[in-house]
Amino acid sequence: MTLDPILAPHRSIRVFRPEPLADGMTERLVADAQRAPSDATGQMYSFVRIRDRALRRRVSELSGDQRHIVEAPEFLIVCADIRRLTRVLEHRDQVPGRFPATGLHFATVDATLAAQRLVDAAEAVGLGTVCIGGILTGIEALVELLALPAGVMPLFGVCIGWPGEEPVERPRVAMASVLHADRYRDQDAEAIERDLNAMASTTRSGDWARVLARYFGAGGIMEQREAGLRRTLEHQGFAWTREG
Amino acid sequence: MTLDPILAPHRSIRVFRPEPLADGMTERLVADAQRAPSDATGQMYSFVRIRDRALRRRVSELSGDQRHIVEAPEFLIVCADIRRLTRVLEHRDQVPGRFPATGLHFATVDATLAAQRLVDAAEAVGLGTVCIGGILTGIEALVELLALPAGVMPLFGVCIGWPGEEPVERPRVAMASVLHADRYRDQDAEAIERDLNAMASTTRSGDWARVLARYFGAGGIMEQREAGLRRTLEHQGFAWTREG
Repeated sequence: MTLDPILAPHRSIRVFRPEPLADGMTERLVADAQRAPSDATGQMYSFVRIRDRALRRRVSELSGDQRHIVEAPEFLIVCADIRRLTRVLEHRDQVPGRFPATGLHFATVDATLAAQRLVDAAEAVGLGTVCIGGILTGIEALVELLALPAGVMPLFGVCIGWPGEEPVERPRVAMASVLHADRYRDQDAEAIERDLNAMASTTRSGDWARVLARYFGAGGIMEQREAGLRRTLEHQGFAWTREG
Repeated sequence: MTLDPILAPHRSIRVFRPEPLADGMTERLVADAQRAPSDATGQMYSFVRIRDRALRRRVSELSGDQRHIVEAPEFLIVCADIRRLTRVLEHRDQVPGRFPATGLHFATVDATLAAQRLVDAAEAVGLGTVCIGGILTGIEALVELLALPAGVMPLFGVCIGWPGEEPVERPRVAMASVLHADRYRDQDAEAIERDLNAMASTTRSGDWARVLARYFGAGGIMEQREAGLRRTLEHQGFAWTREG
């Protein structure tokens, strides 16, 4: 079975040509993003477009000094947003509900659906993009910097521009690892080894498990991000406990 | 400024022609989905493809009896998944970290990026789709039904098939409502009224605020989903408190 790709190939682009996007192109991309599906007509997202150069440099510093954040012609912060619809309700003298976990769930999904539609539209016209999970590194300062109020949660950044590099497509795990039939099934040792082999070329050491350990292992990058993310979720009104 | 759309238009399709997808088409869609960007090479998602007819009916019942879940040629449950990479680490005798909030954040984003790329690929070949947030209504029973272990969290469903209806594109809020310049800015009353007008045609009553109130207002559907979602987050290992 051949699996001919349907969409333009995705490679994260981290080196951009200096020329800006054509006038109106960013708006076309956002218009396409807005066509993404949205739960309950809520459109629970906001994009903060960072054009101010000093602000862009500060966001880059807060995200672990990623040069492409500064150099990309366009850079958006994708935010989950339940604030806007809450204010529509209040404008009409309706009492909004309290649903921090459910709000975070649906708004994160809504925002990410819209952002990926934007990425697919960008790649369809030959633009390059890279998503920046590293904004979580300095997320508390970022929230202040962008004046994100309660009900708004930054999720990731997206750099957009004309590609200044031609990276190869990076490998992926086997389809059998992500596609389950009727019920979830854990991988056996053989399947894990197959994925380790498939992913080996994604890393200099040839050992995918070392990359995973650096991010997801004890003491790794994800654990380091945990405290700041929790404080931000509380600060933005998305924290909850069993009791309510 | 004209904002010509780049991708195929998105309309959620809830009536499907009965014929199945061509052999291998679902796999092509999943292969395209797997090309989506993924944080730290983690590919933190799983799709559970529901083919068993009885299982499909049960999932539909748990999701508020949505006929298109039963009738769609294909139906996938999109899951955030940090379990698979945790097991790769354990297979190599590495100790996984503990990062429930960060894991949920990145895995929800990863899974949703992949799912939207799948939707965009499906629409590019003329297929129709609808995303099903309603799986949250019976999420605890769903987790049991699909045998989703700790580290795996169901997010939403996706129905896929050849369109048996031609719905019009639904309206969206103004671009100015979702696209912010450098800092977040709340809408003023005029902008809220503009969006209420723009969205009026999405609802039978002509009053978008009524739809929003039904879902997001006090006592609404989102509040009703909150307790079950919280229990599921705890059960699947994604809950946290300030203390740890």
